Amino acid sequence: MSFTYHIPTRILFGAGTLNALETENLPGKKALIVISAGKSMRKNGYLDRVTSLLTKQGVSYVVFDKILPNPIKAHVMEAADLARKEGCDFIIGLGGGSSIDSAKSIAVMVKNPGDYWDYVGGGTGKGLPTTNGALPVVAITTTAGTGTEADPWTVITQEETHEKIGFGNIHTFPVLSIVDPELMLTVPPELTAYQGFDAFFHSVEGYLATIATPVSDVMALKSIELVAKYLPDAVKDGSNVEARTQVALANTLAGMVESISSCTSEHSMEHALSAYHPEIAHGAGLIMLSEAYHSFFLDKAPERYFDMARAMGETVDGLKPADGAKAFVKGLLKLQKACNVDNLKMSAFGVKLDEIPTLAENTRHAMAGLFKMDPYTLSLDETEQIIKAAYK
Amino acid sequence: MSFTYHIPTRILFGAGTLNALETENLPGKKALIVISAGKSMRKNGYLDRVTSLLTKQGVSYVVFDKILPNPIKAHVMEAADLARKEGCDFIIGLGGGSSIDSAKSIAVMVKNPGDYWDYVGGGTGKGLPTTNGALPVVAITTTAGTGTEADPWTVITQEETHEKIGFGNIHTFPVLSIVDPELMLTVPPELTAYQGFDAFFHSVEGYLATIATPVSDVMALKSIELVAKYLPDAVKDGSNVEARTQVALANTLAGMVESISSCTSEHSMEHALSAYHPEIAHGAGLIMLSEAYHSFFLDKAPERYFDMARAMGETVDGLKPADGAKAFVKGLLKLQKACNVDNLKMSAFGVKLDEIPTLAENTRHAMAGLFKMDPYTLSLDETEQIIKAAYK
Repeated sequence: MSFTYHIPTRILFGAGTLNALETENLPGKKALIVISAGKSMRKNGYLDRVTSLLTKQGVSYVVFDKILPNPIKAHVMEAADLARKEGCDFIIGLGGGSSIDSAKSIAVMVKNPGDYWDYVGGGTGKGLPTTNGALPVVAITTTAGTGTEADPWTVITQEETHEKIGFGNIHTFPVLSIVDPELMLTVPPELTAYQGFDAFFHSVEGYLATIATPVSDVMALKSIELVAKYLPDAVKDGSNVEARTQVALANTLAGMVESISSCTSEHSMEHALSAYHPEIAHGAGLIMLSEAYHSFFLDKAPERYFDMARAMGETVDGLKPADGAKAFVKGLLKLQKACNVDNLKMSAFGVKLDEIPTLAENTRHAMAGLFKMDPYTLSLDETEQIIKAAYK
Repeated sequence: MSFTYHIPTRILFGAGTLNALETENLPGKKALIVISAGKSMRKNGYLDRVTSLLTKQGVSYVVFDKILPNPIKAHVMEAADLARKEGCDFIIGLGGGSSIDSAKSIAVMVKNPGDYWDYVGGGTGKGLPTTNGALPVVAITTTAGTGTEADPWTVITQEETHEKIGFGNIHTFPVLSIVDPELMLTVPPELTAYQGFDAFFHSVEGYLATIATPVSDVMALKSIELVAKYLPDAVKDGSNVEARTQVALANTLAGMVESISSCTSEHSMEHALSAYHPEIAHGAGLIMLSEAYHSFFLDKAPERYFDMARAMGETVDGLKPADGAKAFVKGLLKLQKACNVDNLKMSAFGVKLDEIPTLAENTRHAMAGLFKMDPYTLSLDETEQIIKAAYK
């Protein structure tokens, strides 16, 4: 048993913690604030609150507000140019995973020359080292899904090549993350469910991954337990602060799991789906893949599925590992139903059956690394077979 | 539910990880290596291994080898002078908690003027800010007890005033910690037990503390489970690498618990004991206090004791909280017996019954802060009463 634990981010968690921005040590004097192209950060007053807290600290700022739900490389390059031109010395990602991930990638490109894809590993990325590090990043998360506030990862899509690839290193951990569940009360039910399932699968995959450690394990099981218990409530009543807080905690724990364990090929497969169909929310893609994926893996890691079924509140005590494992898929379907996401269909998003070979090829090319984390090594055929089984 | 999570230390865990010292990025070019006045670091070849790995990296070093089991302020000041004179730019603590804690305090005093007690908070310490920070610290732990490799704390005794006080801040987290259970195989059974119980009480107190969080809770319960399961094996057969590894993991988890939760007044009381009787190993002091201390607190936090009893493997399911709680003390005594530390007596260490009022006064003066973490606020009378009940 050997592992490395390193999560240097300072995480402030809890309702009301956004106000700490007024007193926390910030890593610079001029921020590039990265938000989405949607209206929610302004409409809900979050951008105003952040800028007025910064102003009280004497920190100035510029806003970049073009980030798409599946963020693209072109915006990373454009925002990095802006930050350089404006003399920003740190980046604030305010919003969901797309804004915070973009903030990390922008932070890298402010400090390093060339193209973002020069540094990305996997696919057509050149995997060069980010020799100059990155500007410091502050993450203020308004969703509970990606766990990006507690991990170094950023997922950006290169549109021309249909590659959606995760990237990160020691420089892309946020230096400060604020997880304030009060900022999540406005997320609509459908997105709440998608994002909550994203967090759920981070923990599930992190528990299945061959590099899981006893430390990631305790966090993963707690996170799985919290999603199963509280996500349906957060979906049903978005203003339920208790449910929002518990789901936010599950998500932050899942981010820590991603930092010290890893996702598996389930995430690779989803990246292919949403790289070709950017209208598919990442969490929705995962949900559509999940029954087929985990049914395939059940007998490859029965003890692990057994533990996760128990964490979800399924009755497994006294069952054999193989039978307990099956209870995981039962619990998964029950949770999907409780969150009103049990009827998602790839076909409804425009995915065609005859695309699946292309998707399977893409997933093994762009996100090859995660296949090495699986408890069983999938062939290309088996990859196709799983996506086909998930197709409705 | 609000909390801050911040453990910036990079922790390398596992048998054989000492060798990583050859390739890890180190925070300087000349180290002050801090070891104890005992012979074990040289006799077991650990110092030689460390210095030869440093040499391969082109890092030079000076050795300071005077640290006592209960480390004293005079040595902190002396070693800081040496480090300054020799131009050391980082400190390596190699050994148990006393050497690593000293390394942290030395690192502060190399960078800050005046006396160490100017910076210590509590007791006669002046609590000044360590404005200049501290030199970077690398911790290489050869025991499993204090958890100091995963927390910012350092406990130093001011001999003249009989004050043994914990201190630490963001600058005193090690930048790198190496936890290699192979370096622990030579710890004799008695010390293995004392140190293992120290780790155990860090987790127990961190679970009881009013500032416990869901993140510290999962770590604390796992740590408690691992000590209860593996410490007797490590005591019985010191060469059992599996048991050593699991106890080392429990200890590192306990250190993380100390970073994000807190110890309680049990630790305050022990500091008084060993400040007046430095021949009492810290773990032994805790063991002698523990039955009386936890028996007193059982009904102040029954649910918490219930959970811990279950983590220790006691049968509690179906019991009422109050009854489950009692199982904790049962489990504690069973574990003491299994580790051959069930017959320790304060009187055998020279503690007199009529000292207890002085000890109770001292504990509330020097380590007042931890009393605020207790699930119930002890009076001076009750503090005396607990120490008296523990006296044999």
